[in-house]
Amino acid sequence: MVRLLRKPSRPVGLPPGSIFHVKPPISKKIRLSIIEYTEDMFIEKDHASIEECLKHMDSPSMTWIQVYGISDPTMVASIGKHFNLHSLMLEDIVTTGQRSKLDVYQDQVFMVVRLLQYDLSKKEVKDEQVSIVFGPNYLISFLEHDEDIFTAVKDRLRQGHNRMRKQGSDYLAYSLLDTIVDYYFVVLEKVDTDLDRLEEDLGSDPPPDTLQRIQHAKRDMIILRKAVWPIRDVVNRFLQLDSSLVSPTTQLYLRDVYDHTVQTIDIIEGFRDVVSGMFDIYLSNINIRTNEIMKVLTIMATIFVPLTFVTGVYGMNFENMPELHHPWGYPLAMLIMLCIAFGMLYYFHRKKWI
Amino acid sequence: MVRLLRKPSRPVGLPPGSIFHVKPPISKKIRLSIIEYTEDMFIEKDHASIEECLKHMDSPSMTWIQVYGISDPTMVASIGKHFNLHSLMLEDIVTTGQRSKLDVYQDQVFMVVRLLQYDLSKKEVKDEQVSIVFGPNYLISFLEHDEDIFTAVKDRLRQGHNRMRKQGSDYLAYSLLDTIVDYYFVVLEKVDTDLDRLEEDLGSDPPPDTLQRIQHAKRDMIILRKAVWPIRDVVNRFLQLDSSLVSPTTQLYLRDVYDHTVQTIDIIEGFRDVVSGMFDIYLSNINIRTNEIMKVLTIMATIFVPLTFVTGVYGMNFENMPELHHPWGYPLAMLIMLCIAFGMLYYFHRKKWI
Amino acid sequence: MVRLLRKPSRPVGLPPGSIFHVKPPISKKIRLSIIEYTEDMFIEKDHASIEECLKHMDSPSMTWIQVYGISDPTMVASIGKHFNLHSLMLEDIVTTGQRSKLDVYQDQVFMVVRLLQYDLSKKEVKDEQVSIVFGPNYLISFLEHDEDIFTAVKDRLRQGHNRMRKQGSDYLAYSLLDTIVDYYFVVLEKVDTDLDRLEEDLGSDPPPDTLQRIQHAKRDMIILRKAVWPIRDVVNRFLQLDSSLVSPTTQLYLRDVYDHTVQTIDIIEGFRDVVSGMFDIYLSNINIRTNEIMKVLTIMATIFVPLTFVTGVYGMNFENMPELHHPWGYPLAMLIMLCIAFGMLYYFHRKKWI
Amino acid sequence: MVRLLRKPSRPVGLPPGSIFHVKPPISKKIRLSIIEYTEDMFIEKDHASIEECLKHMDSPSMTWIQVYGISDPTMVASIGKHFNLHSLMLEDIVTTGQRSKLDVYQDQVFMVVRLLQYDLSKKEVKDEQVSIVFGPNYLISFLEHDEDIFTAVKDRLRQGHNRMRKQGSDYLAYSLLDTIVDYYFVVLEKVDTDLDRLEEDLGSDPPPDTLQRIQHAKRDMIILRKAVWPIRDVVNRFLQLDSSLVSPTTQLYLRDVYDHTVQTIDIIEGFRDVVSGMFDIYLSNINIRTNEIMKVLTIMATIFVPLTFVTGVYGMNFENMPELHHPWGYPLAMLIMLCIAFGMLYYFHRKKWI
Amino acid sequence: MVRLLRKPSRPVGLPPGSIFHVKPPISKKIRLSIIEYTEDMFIEKDHASIEECLKHMDSPSMTWIQVYGISDPTMVASIGKHFNLHSLMLEDIVTTGQRSKLDVYQDQVFMVVRLLQYDLSKKEVKDEQVSIVFGPNYLISFLEHDEDIFTAVKDRLRQGHNRMRKQGSDYLAYSLLDTIVDYYFVVLEKVDTDLDRLEEDLGSDPPPDTLQRIQHAKRDMIILRKAVWPIRDVVNRFLQLDSSLVSPTTQLYLRDVYDHTVQTIDIIEGFRDVVSGMFDIYLSNINIRTNEIMKVLTIMATIFVPLTFVTGVYGMNFENMPELHHPWGYPLAMLIMLCIAFGMLYYFHRKKWI
Repeated sequence: MVRLLRKPSRPVGLPPGSIFHVKPPISKKIRLSIIEYTEDMFIEKDHASIEECLKHMDSPSMTWIQVYGISDPTMVASIGKHFNLHSLMLEDIVTTGQRSKLDVYQDQVFMVVRLLQYDLSKKEVKDEQVSIVFGPNYLISFLEHDEDIFTAVKDRLRQGHNRMRKQGSDYLAYSLLDTIVDYYFVVLEKVDTDLDRLEEDLGSDPPPDTLQRIQHAKRDMIILRKAVWPIRDVVNRFLQLDSSLVSPTTQLYLRDVYDHTVQTIDIIEGFRDVVSGMFDIYLSNINIRTNEIMKVLTIMATIFVPLTFVTGVYGMNFENMPELHHPWGYPLAMLIMLCIAFGMLYYFHRKKWI
Repeated sequence: MVRLLRKPSRPVGLPPGSIFHVKPPISKKIRLSIIEYTEDMFIEKDHASIEECLKHMDSPSMTWIQVYGISDPTMVASIGKHFNLHSLMLEDIVTTGQRSKLDVYQDQVFMVVRLLQYDLSKKEVKDEQVSIVFGPNYLISFLEHDEDIFTAVKDRLRQGHNRMRKQGSDYLAYSLLDTIVDYYFVVLEKVDTDLDRLEEDLGSDPPPDTLQRIQHAKRDMIILRKAVWPIRDVVNRFLQLDSSLVSPTTQLYLRDVYDHTVQTIDIIEGFRDVVSGMFDIYLSNINIRTNEIMKVLTIMATIFVPLTFVTGVYGMNFENMPELHHPWGYPLAMLIMLCIAFGMLYYFHRKKWI
Repeated sequence: MVRLLRKPSRPVGLPPGSIFHVKPPISKKIRLSIIEYTEDMFIEKDHASIEECLKHMDSPSMTWIQVYGISDPTMVASIGKHFNLHSLMLEDIVTTGQRSKLDVYQDQVFMVVRLLQYDLSKKEVKDEQVSIVFGPNYLISFLEHDEDIFTAVKDRLRQGHNRMRKQGSDYLAYSLLDTIVDYYFVVLEKVDTDLDRLEEDLGSDPPPDTLQRIQHAKRDMIILRKAVWPIRDVVNRFLQLDSSLVSPTTQLYLRDVYDHTVQTIDIIEGFRDVVSGMFDIYLSNINIRTNEIMKVLTIMATIFVPLTFVTGVYGMNFENMPELHHPWGYPLAMLIMLCIAFGMLYYFHRKKWI
Repeated sequence: MVRLLRKPSRPVGLPPGSIFHVKPPISKKIRLSIIEYTEDMFIEKDHASIEECLKHMDSPSMTWIQVYGISDPTMVASIGKHFNLHSLMLEDIVTTGQRSKLDVYQDQVFMVVRLLQYDLSKKEVKDEQVSIVFGPNYLISFLEHDEDIFTAVKDRLRQGHNRMRKQGSDYLAYSLLDTIVDYYFVVLEKVDTDLDRLEEDLGSDPPPDTLQRIQHAKRDMIILRKAVWPIRDVVNRFLQLDSSLVSPTTQLYLRDVYDHTVQTIDIIEGFRDVVSGMFDIYLSNINIRTNEIMKVLTIMATIFVPLTFVTGVYGMNFENMPELHHPWGYPLAMLIMLCIAFGMLYYFHRKKWI
Repeated sequence: MVRLLRKPSRPVGLPPGSIFHVKPPISKKIRLSIIEYTEDMFIEKDHASIEECLKHMDSPSMTWIQVYGISDPTMVASIGKHFNLHSLMLEDIVTTGQRSKLDVYQDQVFMVVRLLQYDLSKKEVKDEQVSIVFGPNYLISFLEHDEDIFTAVKDRLRQGHNRMRKQGSDYLAYSLLDTIVDYYFVVLEKVDTDLDRLEEDLGSDPPPDTLQRIQHAKRDMIILRKAVWPIRDVVNRFLQLDSSLVSPTTQLYLRDVYDHTVQTIDIIEGFRDVVSGMFDIYLSNINIRTNEIMKVLTIMATIFVPLTFVTGVYGMNFENMPELHHPWGYPLAMLIMLCIAFGMLYYFHRKKWI
């Protein structure tokens, strides 16, 4: 599979903000989870209803609503209506396969980010879409699957009395972004190990699937690049948002995330160079081996062809061949052939073929 | 066909704005179609005359005039004269093969956009020129062929009471642009499927036309790039037009289209990498196969050449060859040859050739 | 010939504005031609003297002086002196092989543009330098050869009562630039046809000069690029000149020329991709053919080498070889050989070699 | 080893500024060293305690605290707390493998720089992280290992009465940066010598590890680029810092360092071109050698195959072969064979194969 | 030699502005030469002492001091002290191998430029460093060797009553720069001739050193690029200097030099394309030749192997082979073999191998 095209093609000409075109409407339930906190207070509620979410959002304390699963457009639509999300935002949330981006809708900041994880069984990088909307005192995150990837952030919130509890929604958004970028490093490490093993296998006698593995690695690099380059822009735009949306403290920390994204880009570009070098090695290894086979063939042929000619000569049935009747004829012929053979071997030795 | 040069070469030095140079003036009739609408009213007229069009344009409500077919320059000229279009605009409309662009002529915005479609029969991407002019309360679209590509937009207009009916000509222009970009995704999906199949075919024993198909795919990528890169600039310039020409609402939606064009560019660049990787695989597959053939040849030759030499020795007609007269001579010679053969096979086995 | 270096090397350290260094001073006469026009009046004079030119330039009406041939530096120097041209300008006019550029000297605008033409006999792109100087009511054009490339522009001037006659020198300069860019499209079309033919020839059994033709095409691309990229900047700088030098009308038309130059760049970049793809095809075709030859050799050798071995065995002169005396010995040996041959053929068939 | 990924992966989602995640907490002691100086005074203390450091920092004279070894996070944390360093800074100091960067925290400037050294035993480039923080009258440097790389700077300080003693912490920071860039040149020279030797080895009969060495050199180039490109930005940002942080004198000298970093980039890019050229030579050398082997094989085979055929003919056992009985049959057959052989040799000579 | 790294590595950590580190201090004398001029006066003095230089510099007229040879740092230091040059400037002057650059020290402009010359004996490009410092009414030039490269400029000064004598130090600096860029064109022409010859040699049967010559040309391109790209920036910065440092007249002429540097860059990029194309041709020529050799081998083997088999058959010693006793056996066998041979030849002819 080329795996590069992820946008589910919607019928041409649909009105913008349409979110019901995604088929089949898988009936997997959407799970809502609420965390509300101030510096001194912490409430957590799993499997909440939309109404509960709204109630929490109206309170002045910071509220984080997590939406797990986006396959039911009706549900997403009603969430969007309740939380006053723009229809274009909803379309981007539902239409997975988006490029990472950051848009500002009045007092709401909307981010789409690609989360990378490494599928150990298939040995390939898989990516998923995380959408984050945050306003003055709330943040809503949308995940494609019911998988808890932000446990570490939640744990920190639960512990209380740390920086996170004092800061607002922008800091929470930063924390989620930071976590996602941390996942990139985990993936890069896995890819690093794979490339390592691939490189070792290249050394001598590469297994027959080597070419496929190199191609596979190349493809992974394309996916990684497609995911990581835009996220740098996202972080950069986040950094440059109006101060009413991002506090100076958060900006300080975002700069740190920015450095990390630049670092991932550096690493990926390095990987790309390594992978494309592998293909060159592979190709030249094939050439070297063809060369070696040719050498063996040439040595064998070049030694025995003249000898066979000599035997052919004395196998001729001419009547008048005095050598044949000489008692030393046979041994001498054998000696001549031996000389030819060793002469040839010496020639090859001088040519450094053997 | 190289297919990259589409501008019909006009005689050198023609005055700018000349539109009569396009030959042969195919007599296919131009079809005019009118849609007039306000939030509460909707009129649609097919096969209209220019006079009817003008009448509708004078009314304050929004008017969309569709021109199908541009092969009759006289007709286009008279349309241009009636609607007060600049002669340079007309030249661009008639001279198909233009690069996508956006120009502003006083209170008129003029766009040339390339529409991509996938020709299923020829399995290749074909592109067509769509020209759009819009002023305060009217929009005129020009299509090369009498083919209704904007049905979805029209349907939405017909349904009434949606956002489209409330907005002005800039929103309609946006909708058409959005539709055209949606077509790109359809084409990309088809190309994706083709590349997929091509990649599978590469795996083992590629059919003889593989190289041509790879080249074909490469060419398609060039065409796609040529079409998609400029459209990003068009959308961007559209976004940055004066607020008297583009309303904030439309700008919001244009940002969405902009994201889509960036996404198509990403995908196409990914495809390009994939295609150029295919060529490498193809080439290395040829090398691998040559290598394998060489191996077979070398094994056969290297085993039988020494054996044949031995038979040659005992086929010589020397009188004094005691081995020939020995009763065990023949079986022993055969045994020696067997040993040589197995020795060779063992050598190849150790070299991992067999 | 590498053909990329066109600047005739002048002695190192000559003072700037030296125009007498160009050797040999070919005595081909310079031809002067005058066109003077207002909206209502048109005068044309061929083979004019410098004095006549000056008389026409002093009149308030628009004057276009065409200089054909620049090989006589004395003549060019006296023209420059009369028309008050800066010495650096004169050096650029005389030193052919300049990069396209636009410079402003007080109230004079000076352009050097490369004119491309396709030499049908040599099947290669040739380029020539056109220099244009224009001030408030005059324009002087310098051509390398006595060849009338601006006939179309002149014809339009002669016809009278069109836009050209009403506009000033900037519009005339635009018209010449437009004509030159039109010539580019003619060249591109010729190159397109050549590439087309080259591509067809590549398909099967390429003629022996194919590699040279590909290299030739590559070289042409370099020349085209070198000519076209700078002209985009020239047009762009022309567009951004002070309004006292370029009227808004001319700017409108220049934008059109600008679009054309961008389009030529697009096409040339496309050609480059196509040409570099051709080299790859050519190379892989050689590989494929080597592969095929190897196959034939291997099949022949692999079938006959074992058979020859069998004949060798029964050609040995051992006394004790019971098979030789058996009446069915010969037919059986033949049968065995037949089996070996067919076995081999079956093996190759299974390997899809035959 | 791919060696490109250096960031020790920390558990996903850790709070920013965490420095205790680095495992295993190697118990190697951190060594602190103090240098305090004014124009007239110089104090140096090795193996100092944190308290001593603080005492020196409170004095108005310039203080340079060197921290050797960062493997004990507790120690680093307490240093950070005493010296009022931001937790993000501490994380960057402890997390080796950072990209070179410069951040400003209020009145502190924080730099991470990669120090390159050439490991003579392993013949590879190794890189290490140097972190530098400086405020109004103090500078703290952190090194990964207990290795004294800034001896030259210290010697200059000890000598007294030079520019360094008069200037502030920014000048000291510049000096350290300058020293680190000087180390780059030392590494480049070593790499240059290696490339030189590699190139000579390529010439004729390359040793079997050549491909690996080329790959090794390629990898080194990636590491060098990754280290050097960001340092240019660091110096540039340093240059553009607020004048309260960098004096004009220091800026003047920083411009010099900037030129050096640009020069290293130039050299590395040149090396890259050279290395990628080497791979091409290596590949084409393999091809040339295969070609030569083919030639020998073909010459041998082409000469002896027809001769062997002739001997085969006269080895046939037909009764009616008059040549066999002719007394000159044998010599004539030999003569014919000689002619064939020389004819072949002449043909190869004309083809310039021998 | 890789030849890309020219900076003599100085001991790590030396104070900036150190000029005594260059070893060995070759005792070749420095030669000083003075030219003083106003519009009406011209004084020239060779082998002058520093004191004489200072006397001339104090006079209001324009003074040009030429320093030939920079190997004696003591001398350079004392010159620097007398003329009030910054120590960083002196370090750059003495440390040859600098990148071309322009720095401003208060009222002094300092330029380092690389002078390219073509070494006819070694057939390679050699580069040398020229340093130029100029202030209000003086210019000091430093050359690496005692070689008079600015004779043309001096001759123009001697002639008197031209533009040069009227202008200030900026115009003189421009003239030197112009001369240096003129040298570039001379080098490019030589390189052009070399590439031409190399290309011709590539055509058929390339000499064995071709690959080395291509690599050599590639290396030359790297050196040319490294020299020419930075000089464009130097000219550009010169152009944009404060008007107190560069007069409008000089700016006009500098624009001309700027155009020349852009042109050299264009030509070098063209050369690079040509050179990298050469490598491709060379490689494909090797492939074509291997292919041809394979063909000869295959034709020979494929014709004679079946024939030899036939002779083998009739060389078998079976008793019961009726053909052997038939009087027409021998001629018929020969006929059969002839048919096989011609059949094979026809097959190859149809395959277009012969």
